[in-house]
Amino acid sequence: MSDQKLKNEKIFRDPVHDVIRVQDQVILDLIDTSEFQRLRRIKQLGITAEVFHGAEHSRFAHSLGVYEIARQFAEHLERYYATVEVGDGRWDPKERLLLLVAALLHDLGHGPYSHTFEHIFGTDHEAYTQAIILSETTEINQVLRNVSADFPEKVAAVIGKTYPNKQVVQLISSQIDADRMDYLLRDAYYSGATYGRFDLSRLIQMMRPTKNGIAFDHRSMNAVEDYVISRYQMYVQVYFHPVSRALEVLLSALLARVQYLYELSQHDSMRSIDFIPVALRPLFAGDRDVSYYLKLDDAVFIAAINTWRFAEDSILADLAVRFLDRHQLKSIVLNETVGDLLPKLREIIAMAGFSPEYYTAENDSFDLSYDIYRPNTKKPQTQIELVKADGSQIELSDASPLVRSMSGRYYGDARFFFPREMLEEQAIDDVMAPIYADFQRFVHNDELIRPIED
Amino acid sequence: MSDQKLKNEKIFRDPVHDVIRVQDQVILDLIDTSEFQRLRRIKQLGITAEVFHGAEHSRFAHSLGVYEIARQFAEHLERYYATVEVGDGRWDPKERLLLLVAALLHDLGHGPYSHTFEHIFGTDHEAYTQAIILSETTEINQVLRNVSADFPEKVAAVIGKTYPNKQVVQLISSQIDADRMDYLLRDAYYSGATYGRFDLSRLIQMMRPTKNGIAFDHRSMNAVEDYVISRYQMYVQVYFHPVSRALEVLLSALLARVQYLYELSQHDSMRSIDFIPVALRPLFAGDRDVSYYLKLDDAVFIAAINTWRFAEDSILADLAVRFLDRHQLKSIVLNETVGDLLPKLREIIAMAGFSPEYYTAENDSFDLSYDIYRPNTKKPQTQIELVKADGSQIELSDASPLVRSMSGRYYGDARFFFPREMLEEQAIDDVMAPIYADFQRFVHNDELIRPIED
Amino acid sequence: MSDQKLKNEKIFRDPVHDVIRVQDQVILDLIDTSEFQRLRRIKQLGITAEVFHGAEHSRFAHSLGVYEIARQFAEHLERYYATVEVGDGRWDPKERLLLLVAALLHDLGHGPYSHTFEHIFGTDHEAYTQAIILSETTEINQVLRNVSADFPEKVAAVIGKTYPNKQVVQLISSQIDADRMDYLLRDAYYSGATYGRFDLSRLIQMMRPTKNGIAFDHRSMNAVEDYVISRYQMYVQVYFHPVSRALEVLLSALLARVQYLYELSQHDSMRSIDFIPVALRPLFAGDRDVSYYLKLDDAVFIAAINTWRFAEDSILADLAVRFLDRHQLKSIVLNETVGDLLPKLREIIAMAGFSPEYYTAENDSFDLSYDIYRPNTKKPQTQIELVKADGSQIELSDASPLVRSMSGRYYGDARFFFPREMLEEQAIDDVMAPIYADFQRFVHNDELIRPIED
Amino acid sequence: MSDQKLKNEKIFRDPVHDVIRVQDQVILDLIDTSEFQRLRRIKQLGITAEVFHGAEHSRFAHSLGVYEIARQFAEHLERYYATVEVGDGRWDPKERLLLLVAALLHDLGHGPYSHTFEHIFGTDHEAYTQAIILSETTEINQVLRNVSADFPEKVAAVIGKTYPNKQVVQLISSQIDADRMDYLLRDAYYSGATYGRFDLSRLIQMMRPTKNGIAFDHRSMNAVEDYVISRYQMYVQVYFHPVSRALEVLLSALLARVQYLYELSQHDSMRSIDFIPVALRPLFAGDRDVSYYLKLDDAVFIAAINTWRFAEDSILADLAVRFLDRHQLKSIVLNETVGDLLPKLREIIAMAGFSPEYYTAENDSFDLSYDIYRPNTKKPQTQIELVKADGSQIELSDASPLVRSMSGRYYGDARFFFPREMLEEQAIDDVMAPIYADFQRFVHNDELIRPIED
Repeated sequence: MSDQKLKNEKIFRDPVHDVIRVQDQVILDLIDTSEFQRLRRIKQLGITAEVFHGAEHSRFAHSLGVYEIARQFAEHLERYYATVEVGDGRWDPKERLLLLVAALLHDLGHGPYSHTFEHIFGTDHEAYTQAIILSETTEINQVLRNVSADFPEKVAAVIGKTYPNKQVVQLISSQIDADRMDYLLRDAYYSGATYGRFDLSRLIQMMRPTKNGIAFDHRSMNAVEDYVISRYQMYVQVYFHPVSRALEVLLSALLARVQYLYELSQHDSMRSIDFIPVALRPLFAGDRDVSYYLKLDDAVFIAAINTWRFAEDSILADLAVRFLDRHQLKSIVLNETVGDLLPKLREIIAMAGFSPEYYTAENDSFDLSYDIYRPNTKKPQTQIELVKADGSQIELSDASPLVRSMSGRYYGDARFFFPREMLEEQAIDDVMAPIYADFQRFVHNDELIRPIED
Repeated sequence: MSDQKLKNEKIFRDPVHDVIRVQDQVILDLIDTSEFQRLRRIKQLGITAEVFHGAEHSRFAHSLGVYEIARQFAEHLERYYATVEVGDGRWDPKERLLLLVAALLHDLGHGPYSHTFEHIFGTDHEAYTQAIILSETTEINQVLRNVSADFPEKVAAVIGKTYPNKQVVQLISSQIDADRMDYLLRDAYYSGATYGRFDLSRLIQMMRPTKNGIAFDHRSMNAVEDYVISRYQMYVQVYFHPVSRALEVLLSALLARVQYLYELSQHDSMRSIDFIPVALRPLFAGDRDVSYYLKLDDAVFIAAINTWRFAEDSILADLAVRFLDRHQLKSIVLNETVGDLLPKLREIIAMAGFSPEYYTAENDSFDLSYDIYRPNTKKPQTQIELVKADGSQIELSDASPLVRSMSGRYYGDARFFFPREMLEEQAIDDVMAPIYADFQRFVHNDELIRPIED
Repeated sequence: MSDQKLKNEKIFRDPVHDVIRVQDQVILDLIDTSEFQRLRRIKQLGITAEVFHGAEHSRFAHSLGVYEIARQFAEHLERYYATVEVGDGRWDPKERLLLLVAALLHDLGHGPYSHTFEHIFGTDHEAYTQAIILSETTEINQVLRNVSADFPEKVAAVIGKTYPNKQVVQLISSQIDADRMDYLLRDAYYSGATYGRFDLSRLIQMMRPTKNGIAFDHRSMNAVEDYVISRYQMYVQVYFHPVSRALEVLLSALLARVQYLYELSQHDSMRSIDFIPVALRPLFAGDRDVSYYLKLDDAVFIAAINTWRFAEDSILADLAVRFLDRHQLKSIVLNETVGDLLPKLREIIAMAGFSPEYYTAENDSFDLSYDIYRPNTKKPQTQIELVKADGSQIELSDASPLVRSMSGRYYGDARFFFPREMLEEQAIDDVMAPIYADFQRFVHNDELIRPIED
Repeated sequence: MSDQKLKNEKIFRDPVHDVIRVQDQVILDLIDTSEFQRLRRIKQLGITAEVFHGAEHSRFAHSLGVYEIARQFAEHLERYYATVEVGDGRWDPKERLLLLVAALLHDLGHGPYSHTFEHIFGTDHEAYTQAIILSETTEINQVLRNVSADFPEKVAAVIGKTYPNKQVVQLISSQIDADRMDYLLRDAYYSGATYGRFDLSRLIQMMRPTKNGIAFDHRSMNAVEDYVISRYQMYVQVYFHPVSRALEVLLSALLARVQYLYELSQHDSMRSIDFIPVALRPLFAGDRDVSYYLKLDDAVFIAAINTWRFAEDSILADLAVRFLDRHQLKSIVLNETVGDLLPKLREIIAMAGFSPEYYTAENDSFDLSYDIYRPNTKKPQTQIELVKADGSQIELSDASPLVRSMSGRYYGDARFFFPREMLEEQAIDDVMAPIYADFQRFVHNDELIRPIED
């Protein structure tokens, strides 16, 4: 058992929290592991950094931030709500280190461009986080085992939400947790967004342990509301930004094309796989092992895509150029009444020389699996609870008319993506001009419409 | 000639300047080129981002910021100091676009980890910037030629400081220019530093064109002083940070080792160069061509170093692990009276199993070629001039006792770098223990000292 | 006609807008008038500064801020939307100075603690603003007449919303105008609120002149939504803060008591009015003249209340102490089902020795006449309009489900205020104890309830 | 003895520190006293708020800030440096409450426009602070006595720097203490200055108790240097601003005139003192009693000066208008070689109709008694000490060449103040024109010069 305190705290200068305070040797040792340092090489916002040029920060910085917020949670809970007797629904100070470690490590399993990556390669970052913690081959596991033999399992249980103490679980993973709190503040700071801020200090001060988890004093209702609105604003304005989704569509198409070419090469000995860097071949061959996964970062993909600019396959080369030089696809808003027009649009696009498989996509921001506050979905989220003066609880959307009006609503849109060339005004002598003109009849006010003559 | 204004300005959200305002089609076209987009993939601070984890921003963001400051310069000068007649020493509004373009493109030739790169491979980013602007093969050159046939030459002349209008040159490149102004503000914002800020608005308001360049109204003396101090503080606290220099020493050693192994392989057919990714081989073979250079970015190096973790050559593999996992070297302060002890130290370090060639270095922050304000050096800098009410000028350090006391001083230190193992307390049964103990006799209060018994 | 430009702009350092840029001699002259300087002595937030101790800024600072935002409006509109021919619905650059002056002067008629003051003394700050502008005795009027003979009338017409050019009127006074924009940003900055910010730069960039006023490009819908939400948050969390309303109730009671004592003295020669400072006697005597009104500021009231601590009248003395030492009233939330209990509560309070007339109040934040966005009320507000790509317009709440859900709702509460003593736990031997205990039966979870036994 | 902890902390939203955390009942009770609430009515920067319009904050806000910084000091020292045995030079946690109370109350004795006030009326705010703490008539004293009978004396001893534990004294009052730290940060925030910030978190982390007081780890040398420079910048750019000093000169003249008129009235029964508000008469009559002093605030002065606009005495009336409407005096820089010219200047000014006694002044910013870091003066300041790794100490200016170059220097200037009319360009038919022209021969580049023909 090794949970030694440092003689003096170590502070990391951080623009969001001013400082990150490290007070335990274990935290310092975890930060120094190879697996945690790898997070420096993975951008927090992935492709979105191409749209908000300031937001180039890494998952490393975010993970330190989540740790710091969790540390402040623990300090508050221990000072004012420490357990007096077992089962009293107060905070057990012995859970402090577990909380801090789980907070620090919660994103350990993220890969490069996670959303696209998981979609194409069928992986799950949370499962990887648990695997890295539990695998005896990792430096992380070694540090954790030094705390106690069962510490890796406990940390993995918190990540997996199966840990018995629901307070610990919810502080890391719920509708209002250290993870979301840090990324909202951090992404807002780095992108330069004016929204995304909320009153962290007041939320912590008003945080109350309960027998079932974590709640907030009802006098902080407006501060909680403010947090929910900030989340909404970051989603609609930053995370769901159409240009960012357009680049994501491009990256998906590009990786799908590489996978296709790889499969071809497996059945056709004339085709070489030299165009895939050695470091990435196991990925396309299906290697999903933790030790291989840990070798992947943003750089290996960017370096590969950079070489694909000059690939023999013209579709791959074109997609690589478009992706790197930010010639993203354009998009228009879809609504259900015009969905029948899409095959026709794809046909026109094919006539203009673009493979619809790689150059068009439907994408709606509803199913990006981000969790706007809506308690009644199939995958129910932990509710946010408020505690009244007499100890009774009330669910947030019951207390706040504003949150109620937001709950269960779909704030997002469905879009159809296609090559930007389709919207260009063309010189009269361009052979493509009539094709583009035909396409443009379907577009009005940035929406897909049914042309009058149809 | 194409210097078309946009119908409405395009704004990029920027956390430092709030917004970057683009008002000209040419600027938009330049941003969209492949060569400019490449700057997204090169970190502004290189290795320093490892020490200040928040400061992961790119040269792309910085370049937009320099452009924005230059745009504000031009707006101020045109509004209040537009030329009335030729040669009156006022600002010629026809220079606006040239100023803006030069500001945007001034860092175009930077490569990955520029300082280390230039030191090892003998390159010069300013020469590359000019080459990219002048080479007919680049998209940049194509956009510039559309403005006018001689526009690329004019932009290159501003970058090279040979352009006849010294006002334009000094606004981009002098002791107090758009470049320095942006990087101080930006690096401070992203690192979370409390210094580095200065009063940009007042400096612009107080900026005066003169016959020889740019000066400042003497009533802004304190604001100029403030800027000079901010620069000083960023240098001593951020740019010269010992840990950052320690990582730079590691990267230099690592690249030197690869170059050495490459040379060996050229004379020994038994040695393979397979460990060097295809994309990097021309570099070690001496290719310094612009078109090749433009393929390089941070990612290709990071991806390569990641594979070198598993290199056969044990020194290379070890250096790669130390660099990526941030096991940087340690350092102590040197002063001239103890320089004779270094051979002895290197000898002890070699006994501990580390090659002094790759694991030790002397490095002083004086000769990192950063330009603390000192007008009387071999490579004289443009002076900062103040203009009095009657039009007479006075040089800044003549007006400010504080700046005078800083001028010509060396604020920096010389350090000796070595493996961190040398300072560790060792278990009694460690065979290295006596060697480490011997080494530690030379260290006191983080300085190299002459041991008493010597 | 005198609308001379300054040779160089004058800048005022401002923490909200960085700088306030003055470019016209008229603006400088207006700032230097006695009537405008008076605004330095009137706090922007009045009593609210007692609750948010950081928010002690004056109407002077706010007025400069409104001017600066209007200046940015004009710069944008002139650069990108200047009139080409009469009646084209674009912006007429000749309106610039009028816009700037009206922005600067819009709050000129505010008195100390405006809301309470107007309620008690029956005055109207907007009418005073117009009177100060039009009265030939003011320095303001003199500066304005120097511009042109009809300039004062034009400025007053903009303030009174009767000026024919609706663009000018709406930029100063509408649901989304320079006034609201500055106070949201400024009050948030000074109070330290995390809400209240919005994307000013984007709103300006997306601002479009129309034939009927001002609209916003529909692509800025989220930014407009963000502004509406920020307003909502500032209202519920800052402007309607229960403690602030409690102090307002105290101040109202105090001034009503002075008025009552003044009236008594008019009919009873035995009663002296010496307790009212000479400077305030005309006020209680009914003097509402502009020249007298301009002598009033926060200081004359604070100085008077300070002397009333020692007033012979015990109610007045007690109210003065409570107000100055911040012993505000307590409050509980009312809902319509328990309104019948108030007479009973007042009876108990009277038994405890407090005059219900001066020590209790009902106050709801709905009718504080602040304007939450609700287009369908008796006093209809200008709607916020969005402009689509094809030029058609759509009203904000038609475009935004979130704003729709907020429109017309009452976000506020009704409260009953009473002396804090009523809620104190009392020692058993306190003769008041049974009275307080009786009162406390009506309070649960900070709400007025019907006691079980009733 | 009553040093009860609150069940949950109470937080005050603060824009500088985010939140002020109150954890003790005593602190809450002190804030609620009449004497402490009075600080809301006294501006922190006095007249300087007229120059930096954003900086209208009160001593109340500053006092809370000093308390908060002291609280953070105590938390750090207790966590990492708590005393192990008596006399070990570490921090005694039992001193915590004393430190916090002294920090909160250190400015209690400040009066309105303190600097001018003390100069004219011969008072001393520090003596008043101690008197308020010790006087049994104050609410403050009553709260303190509830802690323990000798607690008021202990707090007064800390304020008076006679308390035996030098750590406590220096944390409140030394070259680098909670007071200075808060006012630099706060005044910078409110004025919008870009300087004035420093790295508070790092200074706290690096703070070390010693046997003689407080020192800083030498690794924080740059952070300490940064703090010293920030102080310097705030002094030269904000606190010593020439316009602010010009207004101070006016206020001094005005109060001196009232005192003169009061004295006259004492010897001449024909002269009335009705023009002096009742509340201020004791002041001019010489009342310096604590209980009277506590009735004074900014408002009583502002209200009085407002009535003096209409005073019969024309000099008083004119000075009042100039002060309130900000028609401050102008000034020029003096150097020792031209001091002999001042009698001549005063003579010209008298000819122009201005009494030199009230309309001119010499004022140098050196003797405003602000304490730029200079250890070798008559009134020696506590030095700032750095602690090396081996425990030895080094004085800051020995370690920092930059601070050494600033030590003992006079950064300020001497100025001669006079009516702005003297510098105006005059119409040819103005009878004063030749007098003004004569005066202007003595002014060049904002300095007093010896005219050529003299």
